[in-house]
Amino acid sequence: MEKELLLMLPGPVPMPERVRFAMSRQAINHRSPEFGAAYADCVRVLKNTFATKNDLVVISGSGTAGMEAAIANVGRDKDIACIVNGKFGERLYKISQRYGKAHEIKSEWGTPVNLEALKAQLEAGATVVTLIHNETSAGIKNPAEEIGKLCRKHDALFIMDGITSIGGDTVEVDKWGVDIAITGSQKCFAAPAGLAMVSVSSRAWDRMTKNPPFYLDLAAYRKSAGGTPMETPYTPAVPLFLALREACLIIEEEGLPARIARHKKMSGAVQAAAKAWGLNLFPKIDALHNYSSTVTAIEYPAGVKDDEMRAAIKKMGIVIAGGQDHLKGKIFRIGSMGAVSAPEILATLAATQIALKKCGYKLQGDGVQAAGEVLG
Amino acid sequence: MEKELLLMLPGPVPMPERVRFAMSRQAINHRSPEFGAAYADCVRVLKNTFATKNDLVVISGSGTAGMEAAIANVGRDKDIACIVNGKFGERLYKISQRYGKAHEIKSEWGTPVNLEALKAQLEAGATVVTLIHNETSAGIKNPAEEIGKLCRKHDALFIMDGITSIGGDTVEVDKWGVDIAITGSQKCFAAPAGLAMVSVSSRAWDRMTKNPPFYLDLAAYRKSAGGTPMETPYTPAVPLFLALREACLIIEEEGLPARIARHKKMSGAVQAAAKAWGLNLFPKIDALHNYSSTVTAIEYPAGVKDDEMRAAIKKMGIVIAGGQDHLKGKIFRIGSMGAVSAPEILATLAATQIALKKCGYKLQGDGVQAAGEVLG
Repeated sequence: MEKELLLMLPGPVPMPERVRFAMSRQAINHRSPEFGAAYADCVRVLKNTFATKNDLVVISGSGTAGMEAAIANVGRDKDIACIVNGKFGERLYKISQRYGKAHEIKSEWGTPVNLEALKAQLEAGATVVTLIHNETSAGIKNPAEEIGKLCRKHDALFIMDGITSIGGDTVEVDKWGVDIAITGSQKCFAAPAGLAMVSVSSRAWDRMTKNPPFYLDLAAYRKSAGGTPMETPYTPAVPLFLALREACLIIEEEGLPARIARHKKMSGAVQAAAKAWGLNLFPKIDALHNYSSTVTAIEYPAGVKDDEMRAAIKKMGIVIAGGQDHLKGKIFRIGSMGAVSAPEILATLAATQIALKKCGYKLQGDGVQAAGEVLG
Repeated sequence: MEKELLLMLPGPVPMPERVRFAMSRQAINHRSPEFGAAYADCVRVLKNTFATKNDLVVISGSGTAGMEAAIANVGRDKDIACIVNGKFGERLYKISQRYGKAHEIKSEWGTPVNLEALKAQLEAGATVVTLIHNETSAGIKNPAEEIGKLCRKHDALFIMDGITSIGGDTVEVDKWGVDIAITGSQKCFAAPAGLAMVSVSSRAWDRMTKNPPFYLDLAAYRKSAGGTPMETPYTPAVPLFLALREACLIIEEEGLPARIARHKKMSGAVQAAAKAWGLNLFPKIDALHNYSSTVTAIEYPAGVKDDEMRAAIKKMGIVIAGGQDHLKGKIFRIGSMGAVSAPEILATLAATQIALKKCGYKLQGDGVQAAGEVLG
């Protein structure tokens, strides 16, 4: 029997049927009231998930395109303080290097951000700060609110990548003072990959470069979104917008607080299983940092091989993630994003428990049972 | 009855059912052999439709992203000669202005390109040339082969936008010496909007800027496409790749020569109808230029109002295009791209004929009959 693998990755994630089937309809004109209405539905729900009254536009491109749009539009020739404690923080730093004078505020992956170094950089004149809110490479949630306060104090623009938090975890763009927030369609929204959603504050609009790129020129998106019907400046990926609309309507139906609580519960179940097995969660958290609610990073016990364990799990029809770059072989990661609920989590934890044993690890306790206590 | 409108635009165009339904499947991992195989299928057929042995990559973004990728990677700080005889030529000129020293080689929309002015610019030191092969805003096909020869003679890089010709008309990227050729998914490929396909010659690779953008860094796409499995550097719009694969397989099944002949016949039928009605085709062609095979631009006769005529046609369930910018109200355009065959063309021409009469135009003859003679 050919069957889809259950993807329990930190994106892409399984999509509800109505999201998938929204894409199968015949082509529609992207300069029509019909497309405009779909775009407007998306923006209405997105503003709610971002908790923002700022302008919000959707770009046909991956989350990385959204990251670059942010940096290219407000970071050109600027001193940019890039907070890095994982792979995606590194990516924002790399993008920043192409546009401005980028300063890396570095900590080890999965360890707290270095707020003292950030303060020093702001005092030295950095005018833009970049942060990954939820660093999936390490399973750590960074203190966005705290960093927002520092940015305001020093009148710096705050760019926050919320690609794996927005729509699945508490994010308060306006309250935290996030000037440009970015998310992607294939993470907590459980929509197909290929769209980046970007909110822009009036402070950010006031400080846009006069030399933006073309396809990622945020002002062009604002102008087209402000027309009747709502449009995009260049041909949008229409089926992805139709799918995102369904995904947004599903969020509206579930209710954002319930959705956030569900993500917390699902990741809590994974954390409980790891502890019961006697395994360490990878992130080193403190009063300001937390474990991610959308992906859980767990250290491999000595002797368990990454490729063997994930192959055993895949044989049971489930895909989890390993570590990236220097964490390859050292951690494994279980996503709990989007439409994921108890059945997927229980199946994944059961398969992981079986695989751990198969790979020679002596479990300290029953992780599936521990998860059940969280879920029940 | 709610029914899809028949889109007879110069893109987006109706998609075959198997292309649409390829998008409805569950999410797959984009770093998997399965995704790699889909990407490889696309590239195999795309290289054939481009008639190239050059590297070819697919970017998640609209055709405009492909245009910008070309210019940003080889045009930075260069003298760029931008041939303009329509709206999309203007767009390449605008993008070029953001990266290099752009020189507009201008003719009126729909009139032949100014080869003498191009020669002068090449002699003055332009090292990059941009051309729209098939200018949909005016329905004219530009002499790409001729321009390719001039580029070679002056050792300039030749960027050709084949967004509305490749896959529907004869294009010979290698023979014509096109260094970067670009097309889009939602035109002659009859796939959904949202992907740009870009071929790059070794000459172009040798002259890449050391300061490319990030999301549109062509070298990053080459590197990821060269891996096993084939990948993209950033998360791709997976459902669009799956749809493009089906669209490519359909091209392979039809055969490229048959597909090109079909496009020629369909546009020939529209041209024949226009002549029979006593209307002028908009482009002013000569020995080097031709009418487009994928969109036919027709001048409105005196007294026929654009909005009235297109509203009448839309009432019959069909959407054709008006003119853009200063051609609004002066021309109408009928697309014949992608999966379009006799039924769609006959329905469109019948509706147009009825609408022309309704709008007060005295037909010189029966355009539907004239089209039938071409199609029969």
